[in-house]
Parts: sequence; structure tokens; C-alpha cells
Amino acid sequence: MKDVASEVDARGITIDRVGIRDLHLPVRIRARDGGYARVLGRVDAAVELPGIQRGTHMSRFVNTLSEWSKQPVSVIEIEHTLRAMLERFAAPAAEVVLQFKYFLAKQAPASGRVSELDYDCAFEGRISSEGFRFVLGASVPIMTLCPCSKEISERGAHSQRATLSVRVNARPGVILWLEELIPLLEQQGSCEIYPLLKRADEKVVTETAYDNPKFVEDVVRDTIVALRGIPGVIGCSAECESMESIHNHTAYAYAEHGEL
Amino acid sequence: MKDVASEVDARGITIDRVGIRDLHLPVRIRARDGGYARVLGRVDAAVELPGIQRGTHMSRFVNTLSEWSKQPVSVIEIEHTLRAMLERFAAPAAEVVLQFKYFLAKQAPASGRVSELDYDCAFEGRISSEGFRFVLGASVPIMTLCPCSKEISERGAHSQRATLSVRVNARPGVILWLEELIPLLEQQGSCEIYPLLKRADEKVVTETAYDNPKFVEDVVRDTIVALRGIPGVIGCSAECESMESIHNHTAYAYAEHGEL
Amino acid sequence: MKDVASEVDARGITIDRVGIRDLHLPVRIRARDGGYARVLGRVDAAVELPGIQRGTHMSRFVNTLSEWSKQPVSVIEIEHTLRAMLERFAAPAAEVVLQFKYFLAKQAPASGRVSELDYDCAFEGRISSEGFRFVLGASVPIMTLCPCSKEISERGAHSQRATLSVRVNARPGVILWLEELIPLLEQQGSCEIYPLLKRADEKVVTETAYDNPKFVEDVVRDTIVALRGIPGVIGCSAECESMESIHNHTAYAYAEHGEL
Amino acid sequence: MKDVASEVDARGITIDRVGIRDLHLPVRIRARDGGYARVLGRVDAAVELPGIQRGTHMSRFVNTLSEWSKQPVSVIEIEHTLRAMLERFAAPAAEVVLQFKYFLAKQAPASGRVSELDYDCAFEGRISSEGFRFVLGASVPIMTLCPCSKEISERGAHSQRATLSVRVNARPGVILWLEELIPLLEQQGSCEIYPLLKRADEKVVTETAYDNPKFVEDVVRDTIVALRGIPGVIGCSAECESMESIHNHTAYAYAEHGEL
Repeated sequence: MKDVASEVDARGITIDRVGIRDLHLPVRIRARDGGYARVLGRVDAAVELPGIQRGTHMSRFVNTLSEWSKQPVSVIEIEHTLRAMLERFAAPAAEVVLQFKYFLAKQAPASGRVSELDYDCAFEGRISSEGFRFVLGASVPIMTLCPCSKEISERGAHSQRATLSVRVNARPGVILWLEELIPLLEQQGSCEIYPLLKRADEKVVTETAYDNPKFVEDVVRDTIVALRGIPGVIGCSAECESMESIHNHTAYAYAEHGEL
Repeated sequence: MKDVASEVDARGITIDRVGIRDLHLPVRIRARDGGYARVLGRVDAAVELPGIQRGTHMSRFVNTLSEWSKQPVSVIEIEHTLRAMLERFAAPAAEVVLQFKYFLAKQAPASGRVSELDYDCAFEGRISSEGFRFVLGASVPIMTLCPCSKEISERGAHSQRATLSVRVNARPGVILWLEELIPLLEQQGSCEIYPLLKRADEKVVTETAYDNPKFVEDVVRDTIVALRGIPGVIGCSAECESMESIHNHTAYAYAEHGEL
Repeated sequence: MKDVASEVDARGITIDRVGIRDLHLPVRIRARDGGYARVLGRVDAAVELPGIQRGTHMSRFVNTLSEWSKQPVSVIEIEHTLRAMLERFAAPAAEVVLQFKYFLAKQAPASGRVSELDYDCAFEGRISSEGFRFVLGASVPIMTLCPCSKEISERGAHSQRATLSVRVNARPGVILWLEELIPLLEQQGSCEIYPLLKRADEKVVTETAYDNPKFVEDVVRDTIVALRGIPGVIGCSAECESMESIHNHTAYAYAEHGEL
Repeated sequence: MKDVASEVDARGITIDRVGIRDLHLPVRIRARDGGYARVLGRVDAAVELPGIQRGTHMSRFVNTLSEWSKQPVSVIEIEHTLRAMLERFAAPAAEVVLQFKYFLAKQAPASGRVSELDYDCAFEGRISSEGFRFVLGASVPIMTLCPCSKEISERGAHSQRATLSVRVNARPGVILWLEELIPLLEQQGSCEIYPLLKRADEKVVTETAYDNPKFVEDVVRDTIVALRGIPGVIGCSAECESMESIHNHTAYAYAEHGEL
């Protein structure tokens, strides 16, 4: 059976990335307590295709990624997968991004009631002649309360849900756990948010936010300060996007630090 | 050229709706001042297919809808289009939904500065042996401020952006204008929202919302009261969905009145 | 602490549905083999609110749903949850919709290679004075190949990915398993689709689709025939939406049978 | 009224981008024939915020962008807007992205029937101490037919809708028109797609695609070849993403050329 993807290509154009997107996979993520969490993974995977080769072999991506079903995934398995891809595809570079919702239990601030909140997280890996690079991503819902609105108003201040999204790059050998990163991020808004709040909790959340007004600029700067203080972190980015309650558009801020 | 869609079907199953979705069209909408607004239309159109006919003729939908480019669209043209569809498709029933963003100028409450806000609107028409029915839809962004949060907190009260969506059915011959419906809906939240707000405006918006706390239930009930008071309205529904600033999920309420 | 949601309401308007949407929860789904699958659940839950009561208690939804973490969910637990909601909310009616991606292993048609495909599924329950009703929903990706294109063309025929979505209502006591429903649905397109296909498999898939051309109307009718043949099924709906490869819009058909 | 956004910030962290997203605006786009097209614009705008300044002034974005209502927008107005932003915000850099659907009339290949197809387009501008840079973006729906499937199968070959997205950077003074760029891109797939096709047209489209099989890698390389051949183009990127009809995931390829 002729393999047209293996033909020699005369156009001489390197394809930076060729691969698959939005493959859904059940995946286990290594948890900090030594166990793991089962998540719904959405995976993008790609290789660099040299100018002389007509096509890649798409089925090999699914094949390679299906090995994740055998063990929990962390930075170690991401690197292993990428090294396997370099070999199977005879490619100069390979990338994989695994996106998933991760749950952590949260305790309501007054009642102590426990509920599980979901966070959009990502493992991003890339391997090339420059070596292996891993970036941990997390998006955390927070509440922002507008400092300007509070300052100028006689009563009240508008608040809204916002999303704080970070990407963090640590020195090889340093493992960052979502169980530590996420709570740190939740402290950067005007107040944390929770799935389950009784009335006594809602009072605490409302007053905490009112006492702690923050622009998206404030959230992003405080986040950069917090992230660069984590031992082993050599680069990070932070973006806060706020679904303004007084507008039909969003406000956002983005900053970077170090090497990403 | 053989037309397989025209074959007789032996399965004897009526198809309630067969047609196209997500066709994008530039459309002109009749405005209340006698002029019109150019909008980006997203159209769904379908007919009922009797059990004996194998397939419909998909190209006729695009053909029929392209006639909208000749004149501004209102309830009259929707009915005309549906009657043309009954004939061209030899169908017992036909439906069309035109969704579009509509802009209205808003004046900021203190500075008087003018900016244009967008609203998701819809013209929904259906024709069958029971006659022609038209429903006007509009989704309006508003601000809600939580009555519970205000009541129990010593300072502040959480607020958020919410969407108030209605569908309104009026007696034949009664024309409802988006220019009148939308401002009515904007009054049902804790406060209206605006694209452009100077600091003096933000003070008014913040304090107005604080003085006017509303649950999604309140918004929906006040909306039903307002809509059923419009002369000629014989049915309506209202839904308010609030992007809670203290949670990562939404809160919503839905109610109906009369005949839809 | 005053409870404003419990106030008496003077507007006298029944709220058909008030509740929460897009709550994410890790859930276990009962599997046919007696075990269960861990899934990412997205939940909507609501109650009917009588005209005299101002507001519902939103935290009780999260509270009630968190009990799903204690055991795998199937129609039995959905009914149990709804009965608990009637009591806790003192409500005349309650609804819950649980949406999730479910995975089933598929074997490629020639190579026999196994990979896991994802399907969007839903458990929908409602309870009221009319009793308990449960509807099982499933959306299955399939391939459609156009009969008209094949008939009129000298070579080839356009194909595309389509989604076949059904809702099925069975007599009380009859349990429908996704493990049985999904494979039945996959047979209704021109060909099944797979995550992992080697070249020998791709040949089979291509030729199978070419030998089995189907309009969206055909898919829907064949699906209704298949569903109404399942013992215990008293109602169903089927919709096929096809991402036409020759257009930038979709084609769809929808039909119903019996009581839904 | 105190302006807290103007406070001095002690954290010393530059915010790379702060601004607004998803502002909807009715915009006129300069057309090649000297006229203009009215479109629904979705705008993101941001400035760089020096480390010593606490916040930006969000209302100034809306204010600045509302000036687009006075005249049709092209690269000239984008540069003018960015220069105005530098001044009003006293910022070292500013960016704006305007996304919109643009329609072009297409003639069906056999019947000659005319219909309008929509394309997702973008004007991206940035100004800083390095000067002004403008990138034109366009996403064009095309059909791809798989070379491997055709080669190995005795009859048929799977096809699907794909999206070809490019970003193009031209030398200052060189104006690229969407009316020229889009038709060039439509030629890079296995066949163009159309809103309106009669049976005779569908035959041409089906056979053309079958005679012209292309991987996403082929589409991307042919696109780079075509774009770099346009006089004045100094850089470009091309991505093709294909909604594979035989899978539930997509296949994609991405390549760059020159300076972007």
C-alpha cells in the first residue's frame, strides 16, 4: 500500500508544526499526595516537518498519546512522550499540550463547608535541539472589586468574576504542584470564590472583597511578585481578564517575567 | 442529472425540520425611524419534510434567503419568506430564525457621553396550517447586585454582569420595535450597563446598583410584568442568567406568560 | 441573619425554573459491566418557584449535587436527587441535567487497533406532580457521504463529519446503557469514525462510506427506526447536523417519535 | 474626584498589555473599489503600562475607538488610532486588533449563480519605539480531500471542511486588499466552497476536489509559496486546520516565512 505521506517534497518549506488538535482522552494526573486524579484531557500534539518530507503520519500521534493510559502523567511522562515522538516521527522538534479541568476541595470561610472547585490547567512540553522545556499553566476564577468604583462612590463598589491565568517555567528538576500553585493564585484577587457558600460565608466574601479592591493591573503585578518568589521558578506570565459588571466587554492585563 | 433527493421514501417518517444552520448573511433590519441598520445575520431555516419524500433541496434555502439582500427585513419580510418557502419546497411547514447583534446609542448617566452598545436579537418566524407566528427575541446585558449579600454585609454587596433574554409574541398587526423593547429591558436589572463611562458616570452606576438590589428571580418577574403591560403582547418569556462573581457557575431564572 | 430570599413576593408570578447552570463536578457514571466511569460532569439544576416566594436558596443546589460524589450515578440516583430537591426546596417541581463526555473503546476495522472515542452524553431528569421522567441523551460523531454528490459525479463524492444527537425516553424500570445505545447510533451514518486508523483501516472507512451514501434526512429516519425498535423505548428524537465540506454552513434534520 | 488609577505604583512591574477585549462596534472597512463595507467589529485594544503607574484609564479605549465611526477603516486609520493612543495614554506602546466577518460574492462554477460567502478577517496593528507594524489576517473555509485515502482506496476518498488562516505583513506603503488575498487563499485547498451550489455545480466541486487531493501540509506549503510571491510581502504565516471526517479531532499544519 503506497504511502504518499512519505514522498519527497520539492517545495523545500519547513512546517513548524504539524499534528492533531482537540483529541479527547481520559488521563490520570499525578497529584501531590502521591496519588492521582482522573481528568478529561484535551490534547494538541505536533512535530516539526523538514522541508523535504511531504507529510507526517497522523495516526502516530494518537498511538503515542494512548500510552498515557498506562500511568499517571506529570512532567516526567510529558518529556518521555516527546522523546518517543522525536524518534517515531524522525522529527527535529515535538510539542504537546494537555489541557484539563482540575478539582481542588475548598472550605467556605465561615461555615467550613467543603466543595470542589474546577480550574482549567495545562501541561505544555516542547523538545528540540535546544532541549526539553515544560510550562505549567493554570486559570483560576477570582473576584475583582474595582478600586476606582469604591473610591468615588458613597456606597457599594462594582465587583465581577475574573480569570487569572498563568504560565510558569521552573528549573529542570523542580516540580511545581497545582495543589500549591492554585491556592497561591486564588489569593491574588479581591476575594476567592467558592462553589458552596452559606449566608455567613457570603458575608465574609462580600466584605473581604470590599476591603481589598484591585484593578486587573494590581492582580497581575501581585501575581508576578508571588510567582517569581517561588524557589526554582525562572519565568512566568500572568493575565487577568475581568468580566466587567458595568460594561459588555472585558478588561485585561498581561505581564511576563524571566524566561518562558 | 438524476435527483436522488426527490426519490420516494419508504420509511414513512416525517422529518419535523430539515434545513440549514449558521448561514452568515449581511442583512438590513428595519429601524423604528423608518430607516434601517446593516447587521451581520446568522440564519437557520428549515421545512417540514413529509414521510414519502427522501430529501429536501438544500440549495433552495440559500436561494430564498439571498432575497433578503434586496430590502430591509422586518416581520413582513419574514412572513413573505416563509410563504415563498412553503411554495418552493411544497412543504407543509417552514421556519426561519435570524440572529443578529443590534446597536443602540446610550448616554452615560452623568457625563452624557454617547456610545453604542450591542444586543443579541432574533427574529423567529414559523408558518404552517395553523398560520403564521412571529416571535421577537432580545438579550440585554445588565448588572445585578445581590439583595442577600447587601442585607447581610456591613459594607459592599457583590455584583456581576447578567444577561436578560426575552421572547415576545404580539397580536398580528402589532409591531414591536427593538428601539422600544431594549430600553424597557435595561430597566429591569440593578443598573444598566454602558460601553463608555467616565468616573462621574461610574459613581452613578455603582450607587444605583447598590440602591436597587435584585435576584435573578426579581429581574424575571419585573420583566414579565413589564412585557405583559405592552399593548398587543399576547405572550412572552424571560430568562435572566447571572455570571455570579462569588461562584464559578451561573444562577438563572426563567418564567413565561401567555401564548408563545 | 435576615433571609431576604424567604420573603413573601407580591408579584404573584410563578418562576418555571430557577437554579444554577454550568456547575462542574467530578462524577462517576454507572457502567453496564457493573463498574463505573469517572467523568467530568457539567450540571444544570433548577426548581419551580411558587408565585408567593421571593427567591430560592442557591447554595442548596450545590449541596444536593455534592452527594453524587458518594456513589456512581444512574437513573436511580437522578430520581433520588430530584426527590431530595422537592423536599429541601419545598418545590412543586425539580429538574437536573448532567452532561458529560463518555469514552468507549473502538476497534479499527482492519488492523483491530483499539483507541477510545469520546461521546457527549446527558442524563436529564424531571420530577413534578406528573411523576418522574428520565431522558437519556447521546451525541455521536459520524461520517456522512452525500448521495447526490456520488450520483452526479464521475469520481468521488464529498463527505464530512456530522453529529447524530438523540434523546431517548424508556418505560420506567427499563434501563438503557450508553454502551448499547452509542454503537447502535454509530451504525446510522455512512461510516463510523475512529481516533486511531492505520492505512489499511482508512481504506475500509473510505470505501464503506462511499458504498453507503446518506443524507442527514436518511440518518435521522434510520435512527428513529432503530430507536423505536429497542424494547421499552416509548419516545425518542434524533437530529443529524452535518458540517458540509462544500459549504460554510451546516445541514441538519430533526425528527421525533412517541412521547418525550 | 480622586483618580486611583493615576497613583504611583511601588511594585515596579511593567504591564506588557492592559486594555479591553471583545468590544463590539459597527465599523466600515475600506473596500478595494473605493467604497466600503459595513461590518460587525470585535475589538481588542491595549497599551503598555510603565512600572511606576498603577492603572490605565479604561474609558479612553472606548473613547478612542468610537472615532472609527466617522470614517472607513484601513491600515491608515489603524496607525492613526495607535498614534492617538500613545498620546492619550502617555504609553510607550499600543496595540489594536479588529476582527470582523467580511463578505465576498462568489460565482458557482457551473451555473454561475452568485452568493456571498463570509470570511473571518483581522486588522492587527502595533506601535512602539520600533515603529508601526500592521498585519492583515484572513481565515478562509476550504475543502480538503485526503491524498492517502484516495491513493489506497478503490473508490472515493474522504473529504472535509478545513480552515486556512493566514497573517501577512507587507512593506510600509504596500496595501493588501482582502478582495485579492481571499481568492488567492481559496485556490490553495482541494476545492473552493460556496454558499449556493446547484447540482451541476456540486458535480464540478466534487470532481475538482477528487482530482486535487491535498494534505494540510500541502495546503500550508502552497499558501506560503503563493503569499511570498506577492510584491511587497515581507513576512507571513499560514495554518490549515482540517475537521477530519474520519476522526473526532482535527489535523493541522503551521508554517511561517520572513518577518512577522
